[in-house]
Amino acid sequence: MTDAAVRPTKPATNTRTPAGGAPTAAHSAAEAHEPRIDVAAVENALLGTWAETRRSARELIKDPVFWRIDGQPMADHRERVLSQLHLLVDNDGSRRAFPAEYGGLDDNGANLAGFMELVLADPSLQIKSGVQWGLFGSAIYQLGTKVHHDRWLRDVISLELPGAFAMTETGHGSDVAAIGTTATYDPATEEFVIHTPFRGAWKDYLGNAALHGKAATVFAQLITGGVNYGVHCFFVPLRDETGAFLPGIGGEDDGVKGGLNGIDNGRLHFDHVRVPRENLLNRYGDVAPDGTYSSEIPTPGRRFFTMLGALVQGRVSLDGAATTGTALALHIAVTYANQRRQFDSGSGSDEVVLLDYGKHQRRLLPRLAQVYAQFFANDELLRKFDGVFGGTADTPEEREDLETLAAALKPLSTWNALDTIQECREACGGAGFLAENRLVGLHQDLDVYVTFEGDNNVLLQLVGKRLLSDYARQFKGADAAKLAGFAARQTAGKLFHGAGLRQLGQTVADFGSTARSVELGLRADQQHDLLAGRVEQMVSDIAARLRPAAKASPADAAVIFNANQSELIEAARAHGELLQWEALTDGVNRIEDEGTRQVLTWLRDLFGLSLIEKHLAWHLINGRLSTQRAAAVTRYIDRLCLRLRPHAQDLVDAFGFAPEHVRAPIASGAEQARQDEARAHYAALAASGEAPVSEKSLKKK
Amino acid sequence: MTDAAVRPTKPATNTRTPAGGAPTAAHSAAEAHEPRIDVAAVENALLGTWAETRRSARELIKDPVFWRIDGQPMADHRERVLSQLHLLVDNDGSRRAFPAEYGGLDDNGANLAGFMELVLADPSLQIKSGVQWGLFGSAIYQLGTKVHHDRWLRDVISLELPGAFAMTETGHGSDVAAIGTTATYDPATEEFVIHTPFRGAWKDYLGNAALHGKAATVFAQLITGGVNYGVHCFFVPLRDETGAFLPGIGGEDDGVKGGLNGIDNGRLHFDHVRVPRENLLNRYGDVAPDGTYSSEIPTPGRRFFTMLGALVQGRVSLDGAATTGTALALHIAVTYANQRRQFDSGSGSDEVVLLDYGKHQRRLLPRLAQVYAQFFANDELLRKFDGVFGGTADTPEEREDLETLAAALKPLSTWNALDTIQECREACGGAGFLAENRLVGLHQDLDVYVTFEGDNNVLLQLVGKRLLSDYARQFKGADAAKLAGFAARQTAGKLFHGAGLRQLGQTVADFGSTARSVELGLRADQQHDLLAGRVEQMVSDIAARLRPAAKASPADAAVIFNANQSELIEAARAHGELLQWEALTDGVNRIEDEGTRQVLTWLRDLFGLSLIEKHLAWHLINGRLSTQRAAAVTRYIDRLCLRLRPHAQDLVDAFGFAPEHVRAPIASGAEQARQDEARAHYAALAASGEAPVSEKSLKKK
Repeated sequence: MTDAAVRPTKPATNTRTPAGGAPTAAHSAAEAHEPRIDVAAVENALLGTWAETRRSARELIKDPVFWRIDGQPMADHRERVLSQLHLLVDNDGSRRAFPAEYGGLDDNGANLAGFMELVLADPSLQIKSGVQWGLFGSAIYQLGTKVHHDRWLRDVISLELPGAFAMTETGHGSDVAAIGTTATYDPATEEFVIHTPFRGAWKDYLGNAALHGKAATVFAQLITGGVNYGVHCFFVPLRDETGAFLPGIGGEDDGVKGGLNGIDNGRLHFDHVRVPRENLLNRYGDVAPDGTYSSEIPTPGRRFFTMLGALVQGRVSLDGAATTGTALALHIAVTYANQRRQFDSGSGSDEVVLLDYGKHQRRLLPRLAQVYAQFFANDELLRKFDGVFGGTADTPEEREDLETLAAALKPLSTWNALDTIQECREACGGAGFLAENRLVGLHQDLDVYVTFEGDNNVLLQLVGKRLLSDYARQFKGADAAKLAGFAARQTAGKLFHGAGLRQLGQTVADFGSTARSVELGLRADQQHDLLAGRVEQMVSDIAARLRPAAKASPADAAVIFNANQSELIEAARAHGELLQWEALTDGVNRIEDEGTRQVLTWLRDLFGLSLIEKHLAWHLINGRLSTQRAAAVTRYIDRLCLRLRPHAQDLVDAFGFAPEHVRAPIASGAEQARQDEARAHYAALAASGEAPVSEKSLKKK
Repeated sequence: MTDAAVRPTKPATNTRTPAGGAPTAAHSAAEAHEPRIDVAAVENALLGTWAETRRSARELIKDPVFWRIDGQPMADHRERVLSQLHLLVDNDGSRRAFPAEYGGLDDNGANLAGFMELVLADPSLQIKSGVQWGLFGSAIYQLGTKVHHDRWLRDVISLELPGAFAMTETGHGSDVAAIGTTATYDPATEEFVIHTPFRGAWKDYLGNAALHGKAATVFAQLITGGVNYGVHCFFVPLRDETGAFLPGIGGEDDGVKGGLNGIDNGRLHFDHVRVPRENLLNRYGDVAPDGTYSSEIPTPGRRFFTMLGALVQGRVSLDGAATTGTALALHIAVTYANQRRQFDSGSGSDEVVLLDYGKHQRRLLPRLAQVYAQFFANDELLRKFDGVFGGTADTPEEREDLETLAAALKPLSTWNALDTIQECREACGGAGFLAENRLVGLHQDLDVYVTFEGDNNVLLQLVGKRLLSDYARQFKGADAAKLAGFAARQTAGKLFHGAGLRQLGQTVADFGSTARSVELGLRADQQHDLLAGRVEQMVSDIAARLRPAAKASPADAAVIFNANQSELIEAARAHGELLQWEALTDGVNRIEDEGTRQVLTWLRDLFGLSLIEKHLAWHLINGRLSTQRAAAVTRYIDRLCLRLRPHAQDLVDAFGFAPEHVRAPIASGAEQARQDEARAHYAALAASGEAPVSEKSLKKK
């Protein structure tokens, strides 16, 4: 089965419906005699800054030993993924992020770029790798100091020391600051006592906890001298050489999950477990032998967020992996939709290829535009990450921007993954529901991406708060009345720069001529005005509504905030959409080939207009669009879908997936072969003179 | 684990946040001193016409032998579900739909009502039962005649004869009329020759085909005397007593699927397999020994749709099962959201219960209103089905209405199931991703409901065409210019009656006083005007745009239709939403208790306003709402969410699920127990004087 699936059969001829037949656009750019994209150039653009690392990761996972086996029992799947991790180690896949002195390569951007690609082999492999090297290993590296690095990093890299990242508790996921596990310092023995005082304080949902973890980086409230200094991270050995829990440690298996069943998630509890004082990962806070606490970061809040911020890479890599997974789903669904036929058009011609249906174009093409935007946005995120963690641009401001950018993009791309994969699955009908065609497995595995490494709604709320504080910063010192007048006088885009990550106007220049853009009146600059204006207006509206909270009691302030929570999250989403649009626009404008840039400009227009259509009521209510222009948006989208239809296959081919990455039989050419076989059968039957006549034609006689 | 999960621990006290604390509404109606619902009365209303059958089905599946086991290997799961089917037989679960002379009960409505509930035990059980008795058995019963009933119905009911329903082919799913399998009559031997001439003609995705089916009802093009009389159904034995395929028959296992892995879906192919002439299920068409074809239904199209219409029950029961599954997800998520706390409110008070967050209310409560509407709409559908199939209201018009109603409701409820179950899963965070909490399994199993028994988009397109033809019927004989003027003069609702299933105005009477409805200006009658007006306007707009197609060439007509396909599907969806709104309104108005009716009226308002908000841009562009009223819609929804929040638990309790149906540990009271334990721990610690002080408070000193 697999062999057939991975060898694509190119249809011998392009079996396009004859002219005058079905309601079809051209099926390929060649047929359309239109600008066509340079597939290789687009592939390079999509693979981005670390294209070579991605390519070598993709090359590695062409080996079937890395592939997810559908329906494999959980226990076997877990062992298989563990063995895959060892193979990564053997192939230098585990050391890119770590320092050279421990055998690492000091290459942060490349590290994440490479890991993201593992989603194509098996998302369990990607995430278990992330647990081991991105979370457990990073906690030791980022939160620990030289003594910890010397002691553990080599074994982390080599997988001699598999570990769990014990942050989340059954009772506290999003609110890490409120975890219940304590680490109480005992100066008498110079040890910390790790303890989970109630069931809700058990560490939960931890990869490597149920089976493979020999140790864990445990987050706990650091208590010394009767004072709680907040959450810190401790290295805690879990299991002995036989795999049995050490004294005082216990746990449970989380059992079967909705996906990612190649990872042994579980729970851990600690009953007064003692670890040496040096097991505190003490980069941002330390305890002296006598119990005195010290930290370079004086305020506990700032210290907490610094420690958490050191672990932002999880979000960066989920954004990228979700994007790659979404692209795979679209590759499968678009390829199938270009070969599969169903229903004749009622004009007596051949059956219609799915992608020729207006509705089918509407289902797939705007989502294709979305994932293009995600690729470019993720590359920007990755570059910012590399700058901060590689040290070339490591300032507090850059760190804060990086965290906000990751918090804005990861929710959008992970939700979009589920939405798009599901639409692709439905667009493939019953075939889409078979595990062999990958779509259901992708959905199941990527499901949890939307709530782990930061629940999407909680992340967007953080972004919203950042937007509010950036907004407020402009008015520092001004009084309320002055502010209101000030805001009213400002035209959209002059006042507020969308979380300061981009300067408005910077990216608006549209390299293409106006004639190339889709329609007068909704060109690039207008799209940007609408998207940016919406963020600004929403933030300033919310800020105005929240103003009374400043003088209210804490309880009343909480009520006021709560009444605006939903819209604040929406504003953050709008901000993330703007960032994606800007990244796509920048990416398209960098393309040199004119035909390619033309097609991708249409795609960018489709993305922009789809965002505007999604929030059309807002633009109408807020007077940003007239009803006539609003009504035109939908028509423009339909027209763009028709224009892009001949380029759809090129656009998914540009993802650069090899058959070993796709593996779905329905996208292997098998469907085209079936269609060709059926047509040949009916043609031969007709030629033989033996074909039965239809009852209808009989009645006409 | 299971034992703990199914025994709910009621919290000893209602641990509401103290006044002045978090931004909370009351958590229960009792606290709110407001009208409260009579939970038992609402349960009766939701269970509807066949409440007793539903209750007895629910009673039966309290036995753990019927429950889905997460992570069970596919082979074991398939055998388990087969054995569950035998248990249904033993408990009279398989005979309700069949005639008394074969051991049946002649009770069509009760039959479907009972089967729908099986989704609570294991959706694989529900669907495999549907395959055996709803599809295979129904095909014999509805498409066959006495000879077939005599020969096979008893064995179908008893499961002596498990069978597959072989309609769909790899190459043709939605377009059944174009299937490739042929049944060619051979008068020399008085046999039909069943043949699949190419790979695309293989029967595919058939439950019972991979393992258990001893026979199949095979749909094939009936050819006799050189004429193709279209698709007919044939009884074809598949396997011998040892389970081996009979000569000429082969097949493949479909393997692992996205869900429903308790069903042995597979493919079948036939190489000139001969069956006796009498194996044609000949209720609607027959072939005499000499090969002469005869049918009571003269036109082939009409005959085809009559045969397919006889199998509408699948859609009716999917609508109900999707509704029940959705309700279960909401029961779990709302119960958890009522106990789970996360983040303090910033006012120094206790942590906030999830359902007190504005965003969380927004995520769950409109979906709760939606599923209420679905329950009432499904009961209407079920009654219509019972009327037609029970013979009390079996006219061609009623059949057509039934088919349209099912085609409108099944897409909405099955899509909503996926949307709501996913939102519930995310609202439960990591716990929601564990299989033990049911949500991921429900999503996986119900996924395929949106594309089987009629792809949702294809079904809605059928509804759209019906809307167009109903619309056109009004103008029969009038010329185009006259029509245009006529349409322009008509006010909304006077002209067009939404597919004729309901008379406009019939259900508008709002039993509640205006004071009880949510807000002036968006009361029941205005909601109805907006929803109905949208259907009417969309249909008449599309009809106007399609008018040129009537005089165009077939190819051009296809192009025109295709350009409007997406909007036609939208119009059909709007029609389905209107039907659900009407059903909910009727259901609420039948409630006698005033407090209950009040709360459910708010719920109806929430449903209506959520639909209006969803399509707000349309209402604005089409001048149905001013921008001021449009802006008010969102505010009203927020207010309704706050009003309904104290009733949320009552509203999900009214689904009437017992712990054995829920089974999710997070909805068993375990979360409340954990919250209580944590609070007791901190309270005791504070009382002991040993509690560490916070670093912050230290600095203040």
